[in-house]
Amino acid sequence: MPRVETPLTRDQIITAAENVLRRFGPAKATVVDVARALGVSHAAVYRHVANKAALRDLVVGKWMEQTMPPLRAISAASGPAPKRLRKFFDTLIAIKRRRATEDPEFFSAYRALAAGASALAADHVGELVELVAAIIRSGVKEGTFRKVDPVTTGRAVLLASLRFHHPVHSDEWNAPTIDEDFAAVWSLLMEGLCVSKSKRA
Amino acid sequence: MPRVETPLTRDQIITAAENVLRRFGPAKATVVDVARALGVSHAAVYRHVANKAALRDLVVGKWMEQTMPPLRAISAASGPAPKRLRKFFDTLIAIKRRRATEDPEFFSAYRALAAGASALAADHVGELVELVAAIIRSGVKEGTFRKVDPVTTGRAVLLASLRFHHPVHSDEWNAPTIDEDFAAVWSLLMEGLCVSKSKRA
Repeated sequence: MPRVETPLTRDQIITAAENVLRRFGPAKATVVDVARALGVSHAAVYRHVANKAALRDLVVGKWMEQTMPPLRAISAASGPAPKRLRKFFDTLIAIKRRRATEDPEFFSAYRALAAGASALAADHVGELVELVAAIIRSGVKEGTFRKVDPVTTGRAVLLASLRFHHPVHSDEWNAPTIDEDFAAVWSLLMEGLCVSKSKRA
Repeated sequence: MPRVETPLTRDQIITAAENVLRRFGPAKATVVDVARALGVSHAAVYRHVANKAALRDLVVGKWMEQTMPPLRAISAASGPAPKRLRKFFDTLIAIKRRRATEDPEFFSAYRALAAGASALAADHVGELVELVAAIIRSGVKEGTFRKVDPVTTGRAVLLASLRFHHPVHSDEWNAPTIDEDFAAVWSLLMEGLCVSKSKRA
């Protein structure tokens, strides 16, 4: 691999770390491995990341961040809350499934790293809860949802649908019943959240 | 370890396999390891189990079976269905948490083995769904639950509460918010399942 002559960027480091992870698995994403893959000195990488944990956080953080823009857009949009809530979860589930299917080596490495990156994971879940809570809040206001606490109920809807979007369950996403299982869970949750059937999405 | 002179029993093999798992982890529960722990020939163990997979199924099957008697009793009991359904899940969650806390080495080995024992896991989940469905069916009959399909909804309630009883989530059971998280999920599910607040447990 040719030596990189221009100064290293954060993005180059992240891309190299992703490739190392994809090829060699989560045990191999060290500063030394990434420096070797880039053909640069350890010191050049250490100028951007303090240690292995910081390197992994960069990769995990980037992947978490990449799921967010479409979800933020749905949460901020207008329109009936039940429809937006469904669209939010359909999108969340579709993004996760697409990643697990299209880049399985990286997804499996990501799953292992994310399990160890608890601060990042807490922030990620925190933002998801906020986005869901915003939709629920507008549903309460427009009268389609019962008068629930938006944050508590937003977190409950995320937790109750873990099977369908939490990476730890990705091996089950190919099960033949996965879509009807989600439909059954969703129907029960919406029965609990919505004011009346006639107003439901 | 003294040689076992009397014929080996299935239970002795299971107990020895559990001890091997506890001490050396899931990679080590082979027929050879168990024979060594018992001080008997491989052939003596092979008389009971055909291979490593069969040995692991014995251990996983025993642990799954041990969770069932109290749950079967609650499902078969009489009394208001909403109260029984709550008791069922409180008991299921308490059993899993107790095991994860009291025997963490074995629980972690069990978690890894159970993930590979898909036929056993499917039977286990199948029985849990049936037991929950029986409670829901009696709730529909007594008029406390809406007229739902008991099996579909039973499976949905189990899936929606995975975070609180599926071994893959056991690292999260010590989270400070775990009880309020369950309360929020449960409240949403019961809002969806129950006919009216006044009749709810």
